[in-house]
Amino acid sequence: MDTAAWNGFQGRKWKEDVDVRDFIQKNYIAYEGDESFLSGPTEATDLLWGELQKLQKEERQKNGVLDMETEVVSSLTSYPAGYIKEEYKDLEQIVGLQTDKPLKRAFMPYGGIKMAEESCKTYGYEPSEEFHKIFTEYHKTHNQAVFEAYTPEMKKARHNKIITGLPDAYGRGRIVGDYRRVALYGIDFLIEKKQEDMANCGDGTMTEDVIRLRGEIADQLNALKGMKEMAKIYGYDISGPAKNAKEAVQWLYFGYLAAIKTQNGAAMSVGRVSTFLDIYMDRDIKAGVLTEEKAQELIDHFVMKCRMVKFARIPSYNQLFSGDPVWATLEVGGMGMDGRSMVTRTDYRFLHTLENMGPSPEPNLTVLYSSRLPENFKKYAAVISVRTSSIQYENDDVMRPVWGDDYSICCCVSATETGKEMQFFGARANLAKCLLYAMNGGRDMKTKEQVGPELAPITSEYLNYDEVMRKYDVMMDWLAGLYVNTLNLIQYMHDKYNYEAAEMALIDTNVRRTFATGIAGFSHVVDSLSAIKYAKVKPIREEDGLIIDFETEGDFPRYGNDDDRADDIAVWLLKTFLRKIEKRHTYRDSEPTTSILTITSNVVYGKATGNMPDGRRAGEPLSPGANPSYGAEQNGLLASLNSVAKLPYEYALDGISNTQTINPGALGHSEEEQKKNLVQVMDGYFDQGAHHLNVNVFGREKLEDAMEHPEKEEYANFTIRVSGYAVKFIDLTREQQVDVISRTCHDRM
Amino acid sequence: MDTAAWNGFQGRKWKEDVDVRDFIQKNYIAYEGDESFLSGPTEATDLLWGELQKLQKEERQKNGVLDMETEVVSSLTSYPAGYIKEEYKDLEQIVGLQTDKPLKRAFMPYGGIKMAEESCKTYGYEPSEEFHKIFTEYHKTHNQAVFEAYTPEMKKARHNKIITGLPDAYGRGRIVGDYRRVALYGIDFLIEKKQEDMANCGDGTMTEDVIRLRGEIADQLNALKGMKEMAKIYGYDISGPAKNAKEAVQWLYFGYLAAIKTQNGAAMSVGRVSTFLDIYMDRDIKAGVLTEEKAQELIDHFVMKCRMVKFARIPSYNQLFSGDPVWATLEVGGMGMDGRSMVTRTDYRFLHTLENMGPSPEPNLTVLYSSRLPENFKKYAAVISVRTSSIQYENDDVMRPVWGDDYSICCCVSATETGKEMQFFGARANLAKCLLYAMNGGRDMKTKEQVGPELAPITSEYLNYDEVMRKYDVMMDWLAGLYVNTLNLIQYMHDKYNYEAAEMALIDTNVRRTFATGIAGFSHVVDSLSAIKYAKVKPIREEDGLIIDFETEGDFPRYGNDDDRADDIAVWLLKTFLRKIEKRHTYRDSEPTTSILTITSNVVYGKATGNMPDGRRAGEPLSPGANPSYGAEQNGLLASLNSVAKLPYEYALDGISNTQTINPGALGHSEEEQKKNLVQVMDGYFDQGAHHLNVNVFGREKLEDAMEHPEKEEYANFTIRVSGYAVKFIDLTREQQVDVISRTCHDRM
Repeated sequence: MDTAAWNGFQGRKWKEDVDVRDFIQKNYIAYEGDESFLSGPTEATDLLWGELQKLQKEERQKNGVLDMETEVVSSLTSYPAGYIKEEYKDLEQIVGLQTDKPLKRAFMPYGGIKMAEESCKTYGYEPSEEFHKIFTEYHKTHNQAVFEAYTPEMKKARHNKIITGLPDAYGRGRIVGDYRRVALYGIDFLIEKKQEDMANCGDGTMTEDVIRLRGEIADQLNALKGMKEMAKIYGYDISGPAKNAKEAVQWLYFGYLAAIKTQNGAAMSVGRVSTFLDIYMDRDIKAGVLTEEKAQELIDHFVMKCRMVKFARIPSYNQLFSGDPVWATLEVGGMGMDGRSMVTRTDYRFLHTLENMGPSPEPNLTVLYSSRLPENFKKYAAVISVRTSSIQYENDDVMRPVWGDDYSICCCVSATETGKEMQFFGARANLAKCLLYAMNGGRDMKTKEQVGPELAPITSEYLNYDEVMRKYDVMMDWLAGLYVNTLNLIQYMHDKYNYEAAEMALIDTNVRRTFATGIAGFSHVVDSLSAIKYAKVKPIREEDGLIIDFETEGDFPRYGNDDDRADDIAVWLLKTFLRKIEKRHTYRDSEPTTSILTITSNVVYGKATGNMPDGRRAGEPLSPGANPSYGAEQNGLLASLNSVAKLPYEYALDGISNTQTINPGALGHSEEEQKKNLVQVMDGYFDQGAHHLNVNVFGREKLEDAMEHPEKEEYANFTIRVSGYAVKFIDLTREQQVDVISRTCHDRM
Repeated sequence: MDTAAWNGFQGRKWKEDVDVRDFIQKNYIAYEGDESFLSGPTEATDLLWGELQKLQKEERQKNGVLDMETEVVSSLTSYPAGYIKEEYKDLEQIVGLQTDKPLKRAFMPYGGIKMAEESCKTYGYEPSEEFHKIFTEYHKTHNQAVFEAYTPEMKKARHNKIITGLPDAYGRGRIVGDYRRVALYGIDFLIEKKQEDMANCGDGTMTEDVIRLRGEIADQLNALKGMKEMAKIYGYDISGPAKNAKEAVQWLYFGYLAAIKTQNGAAMSVGRVSTFLDIYMDRDIKAGVLTEEKAQELIDHFVMKCRMVKFARIPSYNQLFSGDPVWATLEVGGMGMDGRSMVTRTDYRFLHTLENMGPSPEPNLTVLYSSRLPENFKKYAAVISVRTSSIQYENDDVMRPVWGDDYSICCCVSATETGKEMQFFGARANLAKCLLYAMNGGRDMKTKEQVGPELAPITSEYLNYDEVMRKYDVMMDWLAGLYVNTLNLIQYMHDKYNYEAAEMALIDTNVRRTFATGIAGFSHVVDSLSAIKYAKVKPIREEDGLIIDFETEGDFPRYGNDDDRADDIAVWLLKTFLRKIEKRHTYRDSEPTTSILTITSNVVYGKATGNMPDGRRAGEPLSPGANPSYGAEQNGLLASLNSVAKLPYEYALDGISNTQTINPGALGHSEEEQKKNLVQVMDGYFDQGAHHLNVNVFGREKLEDAMEHPEKEEYANFTIRVSGYAVKFIDLTREQQVDVISRTCHDRM
């Protein structure tokens, strides 16, 4: 192997084994300065981005889809080279499209041929009959396999939406290949290492685990070879390591491109790449072969590619995940295990793309936050938040002890060790509905169906807290069991029919697997239990005894006001649910985790959920993620943040999402004041151990105006943070827009 | 469900649950009379069979393949109705072809696209490029998956043919659907019962075993629905039970047709159907709606269909299994657990097809033998043997205690409980090569490669029995481990990529699984060890010490002469090997068995095996199955049979194959005398507990003439029994023919 590409790089370990973290730690140079070094967009960037904006506009005019494939099954090598615009081809510093044309959506049937076809039809394209035959008669797809194997109980629970958003009709996603490996080592070295793994896979006794893994490594090896072919189509030989910054970005992007050509998982994160890439940029700049302007251009063009990722989706998916997100999540910031800041100039460069090319939902930019980060960087991030509302913050101080200092965010907010871990994504259980089931002996308030076990319903005139808790415990136990087993089935079939070979090829063979579950309806359960405990709740029944509503007399503490009476219930709920998940058998002995995270699906989930004792009306959106209920927060932003911060991250390792909107005026009268105050808010919030914060800085009136006048130029890229991702506000459905508007906008601290 | 179809049938149990055995036991009428009731062929039979013989002749002229499919992937419903000859269509009492034309071979890529393509090319057909793409890019096939996952050690052992004939390049076969169920119950009842199984599959905890099984039941349900569609194409509605004898045969055949349209396993047995069908024939005859002539015609036409089963094969497969066999094995005879004979008129009718339509290798007619069978039947079978050499005998008295009285032979000689069991077929380990490896420290005498573990070779001038046995034990242990693990991998991938849904749909969901292994080179190991023990064996070495030959001084006892000194070694070898297999982990906790059975592969295996201490020269064919070595038998037929009979069936539940050729003159001077004597020989042989006998009755001179003059009309259907099946002698390769001729032809008892 030609190691000239590594000239000037320090360290030994990473040269012998795949160990990107070791490479980073031995070579990165932290940057403590401010943003004044940054460069504006080059002419090429302006031209390309201008072109892309035209295409995006056209896309929006075409109902959100510019073009779709119907005649080619997406694979690493199924397309010739594609460019943003043929005549600007040479301007593209970083090349590679998912298909042959920009924003054209690929045909990806492995997750489910029905969905692939439905997505075509939804946007007026006629799916190929040949593929229909192939992927029904010859090749079973994930979705079909899952539905054929579901138990009636699972189907019923799914239909009644007490288990919701399951990845049985879309790819599970959330697997982050360590795309940096392509740059650092080149494909040949990675092939060699995977071949070594194959040679050491099992002691010769062929148990099913060993056989399956051998089959998977074989698939990974095929994928690695395919990546080389894919790069060749664009004129690049990625057999060996990247030799300079441009190649490093390009090689890394090819790794990511391989993932998004072969998988359309709900979340397709890019990962933690900034500090890594900075090492190459720094070397080239010091060698005088790269200018800051050109360095920024590389990042801008790479980010532009991340802004172009598209998948063909179906209406029911869009309802769950509104605004066409792909979660090309990309992290900046963070501290090292040795106490050094990992912020580099390239971390600034990534944030700066939001200025050079304006706000954008993708890549889903995430600041790994610590109060110990350099003040300059915290302030720069804060000012970008104030200006664009496009970034989220996650607490590096709580994640680092669990995942080390080289984790990536694999979706909205969930951390995974980069290159060492994969996640079995599992959506959510609706604990609010579960509480209603507990009261109604397993019957669904909306559909009237007997969904859960037919236990004794509550028959008393007023709800008794102890009785409710006793029944809730049993019903939650049923739900947790059914939920885990449904996921076991889904993950098994996904591995069998839709294995993520390209991503897994860039992850250690001896991979750590987590089993992610999630909670929906969190705040409403907490507030309802609080109402039952501290106020007087009278159930309203139909003739046959089914509780369909509640009359609540008296006041009660609500989650989101820094009141321990409510917040203690919140902590109890999280811990109890996780323990019920943990005691179950999980597929491939994966480690169970949970999250409080609903993304935009809170609206759909809410539709399926009846009246609650906390006063929430049937059909209204649930509050998203771990957010307090709409209108519950009566004591300002800080009290709300304090409540959420009490939830122990250790019990929700998959993440605790909190989305807040602050009126600019509440933050300060000048941008200088605003960024200073925002940093102060976050320091305080995260130092308490809180996990996540989506920061939106705008007033309600702006949302209302954008909803009414989406055509205004200023709203074309108006981006907001919703639970777990960013989205262009005008791309949300009206229903979602109304929901966003109705959320608390803090006018005071 | 309309149970009118069951009018006149006795019993309760089988009406409530799928239980064909109970139906048979409650309803069959044993027949003790002779063959005088039988009818000759009808005009329709003669016409159709004449047509088929023309096609067979044409097939032979076209290098053994009449026609091949390249544009259709075989499935239950991929073809319109096909007939032997369009204008004779109405003469066909039993309809249904694998493809649209008689003897046309289907395209079946799931086992391996490479093999499917190679088989086309071998016979001058151009495989479809589209299917190449589909079954390489979109859908992995069994063969590819296995080879990608093999360890280098497995590949080496396979390449050096110490593990041989593995079902990694062809379908494993050997799964016998209970095709009678289609007739007795109709498809709708079977669907209902499988749906019940699905409902009771697992307690809700989704372990991988449960998930896989649920997926398999789903596939089975799809196959059952497909069978109804398939029958509809021929104008039949098989939703309900068969209402008469004709429908019973037709429904049953549709079940079998479903199997051979979807699987091209090495062995595709029909199973034990005679007593079952007789119940329908008897009812119809008694009701006056069926004559003997018509009853025979139904059986003749059904058997004609079994004679037409064809699969596309590749040259390396044909070398192993020469003469285009498919093992459409079909049993007659046998005793019930209650002591009654299970022989019916229909058992006679099946044997009679060899007279009505002449000898034929298929269906592989097997008499389940007991000395307690009615004398008339034994004699009739014997005379058919004398006349046609087309049938084999298996000892019902040793199989019944293990498998009950409703087992089928799933391949050559291996029993499985019908509808309650499936087998993971696993070909053979070459124990003769293993003995040579033991002496040479794991090096292969022919390829010089280090294949086994590099243990200390034997360096003494003369072989010491104890040292050889010590080293053989260790080497056999290595081989058994490698062999079982190779099979584990193959079976896993076969389940994953080429699952036998149609066959398994007609087997109980709670299926018993056996894991079949096999021994090759049996007699040569026995004789070689005997030579080392009782004579003086001097190894001849190459310069580097590799033993390449032996000089054996003095005489030694040989297996096949009823001499306990040799036969005890034979028993030891079998027991030792099985115990080494048994202690390993087997896929799906299947029950390990072994066989002494090589089919015609003894020639290929022999080619790869070096000189042996027993005097067998390198490259010469191994003696087939459990047969004594060529020329070893010095004491006549009975002594040879006595030796083989000593092998305990309990240690070789997968079968002990013995093929003998008797000069007609040695059996007697008249057919009457010959059949009497043959019955006596078999009574004696089987009463000692022997398992199997292939009976050939002809002299060597007939073989020699047939080899030189294959064009003679009399040899067109000249059928002989080889190890495990029957074959048209002229369809064997010259090499195989020479091997058959060189085997012992007993001229005396």
